[in-house]
Amino acid sequence: MTTLGIIAGGGELPLAIAESVRDSGRDIFVLTLPGAEEALSQFPGERAGIGELGKSISLLKQNRCDAVTFAGRVSRPDLRALKLDARGALALPKVAAAALKGDDALMRAVLAVFEKEGFRVIGTAEAAPDLIASAGVYGRHAPDAQALEDISLARTVVRRLGELDIGQAAAVADGLVLAVEAAEGTDAMLQRLPQLSRNLLGTAERRRGVLVKAPKPTQDRRVDLPVIGVRTIELAAEGGLAGVAVEAGAALIMRKGKIIEAANALGLFVMAFDPADFA
Amino acid sequence: MTTLGIIAGGGELPLAIAESVRDSGRDIFVLTLPGAEEALSQFPGERAGIGELGKSISLLKQNRCDAVTFAGRVSRPDLRALKLDARGALALPKVAAAALKGDDALMRAVLAVFEKEGFRVIGTAEAAPDLIASAGVYGRHAPDAQALEDISLARTVVRRLGELDIGQAAAVADGLVLAVEAAEGTDAMLQRLPQLSRNLLGTAERRRGVLVKAPKPTQDRRVDLPVIGVRTIELAAEGGLAGVAVEAGAALIMRKGKIIEAANALGLFVMAFDPADFA
Repeated sequence: MTTLGIIAGGGELPLAIAESVRDSGRDIFVLTLPGAEEALSQFPGERAGIGELGKSISLLKQNRCDAVTFAGRVSRPDLRALKLDARGALALPKVAAAALKGDDALMRAVLAVFEKEGFRVIGTAEAAPDLIASAGVYGRHAPDAQALEDISLARTVVRRLGELDIGQAAAVADGLVLAVEAAEGTDAMLQRLPQLSRNLLGTAERRRGVLVKAPKPTQDRRVDLPVIGVRTIELAAEGGLAGVAVEAGAALIMRKGKIIEAANALGLFVMAFDPADFA
Repeated sequence: MTTLGIIAGGGELPLAIAESVRDSGRDIFVLTLPGAEEALSQFPGERAGIGELGKSISLLKQNRCDAVTFAGRVSRPDLRALKLDARGALALPKVAAAALKGDDALMRAVLAVFEKEGFRVIGTAEAAPDLIASAGVYGRHAPDAQALEDISLARTVVRRLGELDIGQAAAVADGLVLAVEAAEGTDAMLQRLPQLSRNLLGTAERRRGVLVKAPKPTQDRRVDLPVIGVRTIELAAEGGLAGVAVEAGAALIMRKGKIIEAANALGLFVMAFDPADFA
């Protein structure tokens, strides 16, 4: 088995993937982009700028990577301020044109560059299959009938958002859409829940509403799958929500043990639903 | 002409409507709900709680109102804590059941109660027609080609949101959906723009992106039309946006003169688009 290249942006996910791949016994080489977590330096790897495509590709090849996987947040760079190497400059017009069509088109253009260079681009499902959510209820708490209805509505909302490449998350309580994710990300979306009128929200004693995360139908499932972590559960709890639900097989759960611990302690359910149950 | 009853929630809109109706020479009676602005006390009127439906109806009848109009924000009350009079208690089950289906169903149920009592329920378009946005560009600045594209995308987003009774507003810049309104309201949505990655945002020198507001296709157009005011323009400016666009004939513009002044000073465009132009 050859080395897997992990192209790592910000957030906890690249670390979770790196650990998972290492534990599976496969060699990895981590290319850290600006904003990647410091803890990734424990793995063999190197830093690269977003515009340093030539350097990135050379490094991956020198380190015998035949496959690469993308993980973590990368902010859209300011194209005018971007430091480009020759290969980066060559790719720029196509990538920039794709960026105007939205995040998904942008990612497809980036993947195409790596595929053209002979790398196999694999998703987290293949690189770190233990992170993929399997169907079921995690932890001690289960959704009640109202929560299931809210999950159903939130899922419809997320699918509609996804069709327009807007976001992957929505919060719904008692049939009312509390918040919808766009460019701000899920954490920021959850952080604004406590600012809503208190009558709309649950409390620690009487939790109401759900967070649902699901992929956009348009997106390449090899990148940017919805993710939940301990922080997601904590922020959902602060927003008075009763639980968090993701689409089984199409979302990543980071540190499942810690998530279950947090959810049990805070009184939230965590589940992965079978999409066929909400057709 | 008989007296028009204005049932007033929070925000500037009830005041703008009351002034407009008064200036037209028609008598008004303002029923102020909790959260209504103090300045409404200059008009003939009375306070009422949200659950005091009997009292509200009596007051409106005593003051010879044959028509009523609803304006301003009302937070969804906590039904368990609501102070109800006898008529309110009678209406509660139906209204509460409707509330579970979303804001629009809730408002339809409330309107039905007043119609059953013999009031004609009229919208702002009839009560204060001068507040309705007419098609065109207001002020000194006009949208450029990119802004028109962003308006078109934002309008599609708002329509999709509206179909699900989520919200009436979205912000889009260079093809990317920056923010989408749900229960938090437009001001709160705009206030979070400056927290996004700076690469996504325009600046005072180089503005990018648009705010679009348009009604939900499902909503009763007699209530809750999208509104813009001076504050909308100021918050859009703080978010780096290039302008604000609403659907002509289906949005309210409060204090048009002041809005144009603010937009000219801040370098934003304000326009009302003909929906047929974005079919």
